[in-house]
Amino acid sequence: MNVLVIAAHPDDEVLGCGGTIARLAAEGSTVSILILANGLTSRADFDPVNDAAQLRVHHERAQRAGKLLGANSVIFGGFPDQKMDTVPLLEVTQAIEGEIARVQPKLVFTQHGGDLNMDHVITFRATMTATRPMAGGSVKGLYSYEVGSSTDWSFQQFEPRFHPQVFFNISEHLETKIAAMQIYESEAREFPHPRSPEALRAAARRWGSTVGVHAAEAFCCVREIN
Amino acid sequence: MNVLVIAAHPDDEVLGCGGTIARLAAEGSTVSILILANGLTSRADFDPVNDAAQLRVHHERAQRAGKLLGANSVIFGGFPDQKMDTVPLLEVTQAIEGEIARVQPKLVFTQHGGDLNMDHVITFRATMTATRPMAGGSVKGLYSYEVGSSTDWSFQQFEPRFHPQVFFNISEHLETKIAAMQIYESEAREFPHPRSPEALRAAARRWGSTVGVHAAEAFCCVREIN
Amino acid sequence: MNVLVIAAHPDDEVLGCGGTIARLAAEGSTVSILILANGLTSRADFDPVNDAAQLRVHHERAQRAGKLLGANSVIFGGFPDQKMDTVPLLEVTQAIEGEIARVQPKLVFTQHGGDLNMDHVITFRATMTATRPMAGGSVKGLYSYEVGSSTDWSFQQFEPRFHPQVFFNISEHLETKIAAMQIYESEAREFPHPRSPEALRAAARRWGSTVGVHAAEAFCCVREIN
Amino acid sequence: MNVLVIAAHPDDEVLGCGGTIARLAAEGSTVSILILANGLTSRADFDPVNDAAQLRVHHERAQRAGKLLGANSVIFGGFPDQKMDTVPLLEVTQAIEGEIARVQPKLVFTQHGGDLNMDHVITFRATMTATRPMAGGSVKGLYSYEVGSSTDWSFQQFEPRFHPQVFFNISEHLETKIAAMQIYESEAREFPHPRSPEALRAAARRWGSTVGVHAAEAFCCVREIN
Amino acid sequence: MNVLVIAAHPDDEVLGCGGTIARLAAEGSTVSILILANGLTSRADFDPVNDAAQLRVHHERAQRAGKLLGANSVIFGGFPDQKMDTVPLLEVTQAIEGEIARVQPKLVFTQHGGDLNMDHVITFRATMTATRPMAGGSVKGLYSYEVGSSTDWSFQQFEPRFHPQVFFNISEHLETKIAAMQIYESEAREFPHPRSPEALRAAARRWGSTVGVHAAEAFCCVREIN
Amino acid sequence: MNVLVIAAHPDDEVLGCGGTIARLAAEGSTVSILILANGLTSRADFDPVNDAAQLRVHHERAQRAGKLLGANSVIFGGFPDQKMDTVPLLEVTQAIEGEIARVQPKLVFTQHGGDLNMDHVITFRATMTATRPMAGGSVKGLYSYEVGSSTDWSFQQFEPRFHPQVFFNISEHLETKIAAMQIYESEAREFPHPRSPEALRAAARRWGSTVGVHAAEAFCCVREIN
Repeated sequence: MNVLVIAAHPDDEVLGCGGTIARLAAEGSTVSILILANGLTSRADFDPVNDAAQLRVHHERAQRAGKLLGANSVIFGGFPDQKMDTVPLLEVTQAIEGEIARVQPKLVFTQHGGDLNMDHVITFRATMTATRPMAGGSVKGLYSYEVGSSTDWSFQQFEPRFHPQVFFNISEHLETKIAAMQIYESEAREFPHPRSPEALRAAARRWGSTVGVHAAEAFCCVREIN
Repeated sequence: MNVLVIAAHPDDEVLGCGGTIARLAAEGSTVSILILANGLTSRADFDPVNDAAQLRVHHERAQRAGKLLGANSVIFGGFPDQKMDTVPLLEVTQAIEGEIARVQPKLVFTQHGGDLNMDHVITFRATMTATRPMAGGSVKGLYSYEVGSSTDWSFQQFEPRFHPQVFFNISEHLETKIAAMQIYESEAREFPHPRSPEALRAAARRWGSTVGVHAAEAFCCVREIN
Repeated sequence: MNVLVIAAHPDDEVLGCGGTIARLAAEGSTVSILILANGLTSRADFDPVNDAAQLRVHHERAQRAGKLLGANSVIFGGFPDQKMDTVPLLEVTQAIEGEIARVQPKLVFTQHGGDLNMDHVITFRATMTATRPMAGGSVKGLYSYEVGSSTDWSFQQFEPRFHPQVFFNISEHLETKIAAMQIYESEAREFPHPRSPEALRAAARRWGSTVGVHAAEAFCCVREIN
Repeated sequence: MNVLVIAAHPDDEVLGCGGTIARLAAEGSTVSILILANGLTSRADFDPVNDAAQLRVHHERAQRAGKLLGANSVIFGGFPDQKMDTVPLLEVTQAIEGEIARVQPKLVFTQHGGDLNMDHVITFRATMTATRPMAGGSVKGLYSYEVGSSTDWSFQQFEPRFHPQVFFNISEHLETKIAAMQIYESEAREFPHPRSPEALRAAARRWGSTVGVHAAEAFCCVREIN
Repeated sequence: MNVLVIAAHPDDEVLGCGGTIARLAAEGSTVSILILANGLTSRADFDPVNDAAQLRVHHERAQRAGKLLGANSVIFGGFPDQKMDTVPLLEVTQAIEGEIARVQPKLVFTQHGGDLNMDHVITFRATMTATRPMAGGSVKGLYSYEVGSSTDWSFQQFEPRFHPQVFFNISEHLETKIAAMQIYESEAREFPHPRSPEALRAAARRWGSTVGVHAAEAFCCVREIN
Repeated sequence: MNVLVIAAHPDDEVLGCGGTIARLAAEGSTVSILILANGLTSRADFDPVNDAAQLRVHHERAQRAGKLLGANSVIFGGFPDQKMDTVPLLEVTQAIEGEIARVQPKLVFTQHGGDLNMDHVITFRATMTATRPMAGGSVKGLYSYEVGSSTDWSFQQFEPRFHPQVFFNISEHLETKIAAMQIYESEAREFPHPRSPEALRAAARRWGSTVGVHAAEAFCCVREIN
């Protein structure tokens, strides 16, 4: 089965569905990852002189994290970090359409549309548009994932709300997810930060206990065609 | 795969997921149908003297409709028609729990919880309770279906709203669904009634056109555990 | 009665309220149509060399479709197709305010604000702003209409959801609507595409069956002042 | 035009749409009022011995208030006050269906379904069921009204939320509404109670300022068929 | 400060706000607990012969748990377990009104109204009614709490949704909460059950990480008057 | 206690929480006001030649209004009026972050995110981002306020809806609020305009009657950490 994971920034793909990527890859799926923005340039400590070098490090980490999870490819869209609202939505949509055409995925996972982070909001809407279900399209399932630090911090003020209906048991893959997250050293944070290993474990156990398994990732079901 | 369809009244199971029952049965699933109320006794033209005979006719029609769709069994709960609000919810829940224990379904289809009809509302909540996802339970997917005359007539005033995310292509089974509906002669109505054949076809085409197939049934995804 | 129909792209006015336009015009209303974007320039097969000629064809079709429905005028706003998010919202609002001042409409119909298409979203918000109900304003009713291919494809992820409360019986005008749609040859699609004649008929019958008539168009009531 | 106003308790019809009743009656409509419960028996100061006398006083006030507003008839349903949840919903529905059959209303106004008061919730659902729009029915518009002390005190915790879209200008009829409310002496309260004259004036001015008139009543549009 | 915690069943008060009770009591508040139903009689293993003895055990546990948390009193309402839908809502409301009059609380904590469990739903609505904010009332803050096994299992199908806005830091009191829960031996479950110690810890850490503390309980703010 | 009030345009801070500012200042809090846009340049009667002079007048009024309410400082962000959608969201967020760092507020009041006015929407999201609750942050409460002419005119079409849960009694400060509003002469309007003194009084009485006080301002509780 071909699977496409779309993320706004490097590490979102791990935080949102790292366990599910690891599980689907382990079960034989071909998982591709598309990271739209570069995840770096808007940071306060960003030095334009060292831009190329830093970006290279960031991208290399995304490649290593993807490899650890078992993904087949990690592609970068090159959109401006934390400034995707300055790009016409149509351009983001077309970048995703290109990857859809290349990968022909059956399942697509994307950012949650109600996150606080505007790049996530834009990624969600662009994915919705790029995967609209016309006759003959490959995409049969579209799901959105949470990213603790952005999904929780919207405090349910924006639509869609994160009301997950689809759960993947990641009991066997939680530690791989956390290991992949640790590759993004510059992003790792201490508990109680939502991106700390302890917070990731608490979230996975919480969702797990909701559906009777030891660890789970949760997704909103946008659309499923059987 | 074991599948359980739960309906408040005879004909709801056909209106809501007759095409999907036919398709799943044709593809090899074992489909059981549980009809909670008798679908008759509150009608204005109901004559208590002929009660037993009329009920027998009604039940026999449900059996014939189920058979036409390919279901393995049709069971009746015996709750009072249009008066399930006079029964403690716990009793309805326990009736469903019994059938779950017997059938061990992987997928469950039930009435939509935001319908105008109170028996549907009660059926939904009781199903939610009977299928709560504790470790070791058989139910991996829970979906709710629409019934035109009751779902549409709530005019989105009640929660949950019918915002379907899961679609089954029933292009090959739409006519079987309509034939099954015609077995319930006493219920068939002329267009523009939502239970008329023409209205059923229009609904199936509408949902089909939404997801790129010729005819579809639409469901809300309550919960899916992978 | 003066009526103003506001559309983002040519053909939205027909898909959304072609039957209602035809009916209101037949009943004596003066219907004006304002089309904000040109509906052409973002298409993949767009050739800038032939731009002027193609746009002329497109606009001429809009005029013919409007005439067939009985509209008095079709005006174009000239905003960039599929890129209205690159224009300050204030400019779109002012364009609509100008048309409101000219037409002095009692009823206004506009795109649905929860559509997948961003130009529709922008059109809705700009119309809301341009028609804000200050003392002495002409607008007494504001309604939003659906466009199958964009309203359905939002899969209820965006607010406002399309929960229509207002229905116009278009039983006598459905075929005129479909004929108007066929003028936009470049846009017509085969079933199951939501813009195909069969899908338009299925949608009109579906809404009709919901409210007891043979064919209907459905609208969200944004505001009504009696 | 025939208009039917449905209330759970005596005084709800005045609080919710007294100004609109007065205006529609003044403009020539025939307005009927159906009051489902008796509005008295659950009060702490209720003395069963004097039941009949007290009820007679209460009903007589409802008649006088209705007359002042210009209503043609005030009918009582006789359901138990604050205990309509002990009656099967079907019985409430059938009581309303009887009045609909008698009055043949074009417009129906009913309690808001998201009120804190359960009798209001039940009245709303029963009205929805009794007026379901089958072909040939008389009801073309169904609206729900607010009752300050119950609608506000739900603090938007229940669905449907009171999001009014339909406003009636009652600038000429606000004082008649307040006079009708004063007939229900036992219910009148001092500001800041939501049923005090000053609170009623503040609410009417607030809604008026929202839509550019001096005083208004606000309604949710449940359904309108044109 | 006087605080009243209202629970449908024994253990809900601990699961929902045990840490907050412990913290408020430690900080000097007088905390009263009202448990409406007995929490026992609908269980499958319930033996009517031993009813009195079992109930006594259950109540005694509630007293011990309350004492451990630092509550001043634990009162029982005596309503039928899992069958509060068979009691008129007015009776539940009056029971709560009595306790409000006795305790004169400034803060009230109650079950969440969108839980799957009907007793919780009823408790919420009755609390809303009993605490309606009339001039001179003591209640300044009303909050609803979650109970993992019932709040999570509604899968956001019912209103109100659990969208918490108010968080109490319980870092110093989490272990007291878990110890109180262990007093209810008959209710304790193994992970991944939502009532297991590990699931309670995961939930507290999850909410904590959301607001930057080590452990938190989350509440919906129904109403706050400053 | 340090309090920060964030407004998109001069006068929003008065309309939304003028009474609460006056009360908190009178009770000893240090209140700072940040006004992001200039509130002038998009008006039709704006003359670029007199820009500097007009802006100076406008800012001077904001200073006088703030002083009357008892605020300690009024700072201007300098963003373009009615065109904040042309600025990257990140820049607005950073401006607010700077003020948060300077003021170290415990409570923050900001525009409502569901307003019709896009500058308000942007202000809300930027405030949410600037105050995200990481460990050690100063902000313990975040609330959004309504502005009649913009909040009401969204007619509940946008999320978040204005469902206030937090009320401040401003009975002693309503007239100060209205006096502060009258300083903004160019903005004052005659009733029924929502910014007229009579409309402001009606709104304050309406909210007051909802919670049992003579006058109140209403707020949505976005987040509260205890």
